[in-house]
Amino acid sequence: MTDHNGGSELPELSLEFRPKFDIAGLVTAVVIENSTKDVLMVAHMNADAIAQTQSSGIAHFWSRSRQELWMKGGTSGNTLSVTEIRTDCDQDALLLYVDPAGPACHTGEHSCFYRIVSDGPLVRVKT
Amino acid sequence: MTDHNGGSELPELSLEFRPKFDIAGLVTAVVIENSTKDVLMVAHMNADAIAQTQSSGIAHFWSRSRQELWMKGGTSGNTLSVTEIRTDCDQDALLLYVDPAGPACHTGEHSCFYRIVSDGPLVRVKT
Repeated sequence: MTDHNGGSELPELSLEFRPKFDIAGLVTAVVIENSTKDVLMVAHMNADAIAQTQSSGIAHFWSRSRQELWMKGGTSGNTLSVTEIRTDCDQDALLLYVDPAGPACHTGEHSCFYRIVSDGPLVRVKT
Repeated sequence: MTDHNGGSELPELSLEFRPKFDIAGLVTAVVIENSTKDVLMVAHMNADAIAQTQSSGIAHFWSRSRQELWMKGGTSGNTLSVTEIRTDCDQDALLLYVDPAGPACHTGEHSCFYRIVSDGPLVRVKT
């Protein structure tokens, strides 16, 4: 394994991309729209989803409910073109910067985060 | 249990805040800086962390490594004042909009996401 940083194995300092997968083989992926910086969705990626995303430029995830690799938009057409991926300090979460082809949420909303938590009922975000 | 939306139990349509905790009792929390919309960090919250955050206005998380409730900045002073919380369609992820008192990352970086994934070594984000 290539050592890019002179011997340090600390994930915070390393310049080697070495995702820290959880016991299910997953890291958290946060999807951000380039044009607005809105967080569109949160999903999970295994090693295969990361590799497919890197090779195709289209976001792939691991569906925990269906237990299968999932190209977002494969059915709806609302794919996510990935222009940049960032990793966090301990490499167990990724940011995906994307240009979405349509609404990111399966409900038809622009973002999955369309409701604000309040003391009472959830409040819909004004669009 | 109060039914705010005329009988639907679909989490996508409900206006009831009912986090869908995973088997470990956690939801994913994505922290966003109000002034820049930068994603500062990703962490996890259990019901107690959510309640403490709501009552204090300061972000609390569940530390998976230490298995304890954790007020971010309790040691460093780099607390996160939470001004808004949003939930996603299936209520297993939250966005926390915050005003940070200092660098969010334990490395001293503004954001934990300071490295870009490339074909070669990770590339530090230009600041």
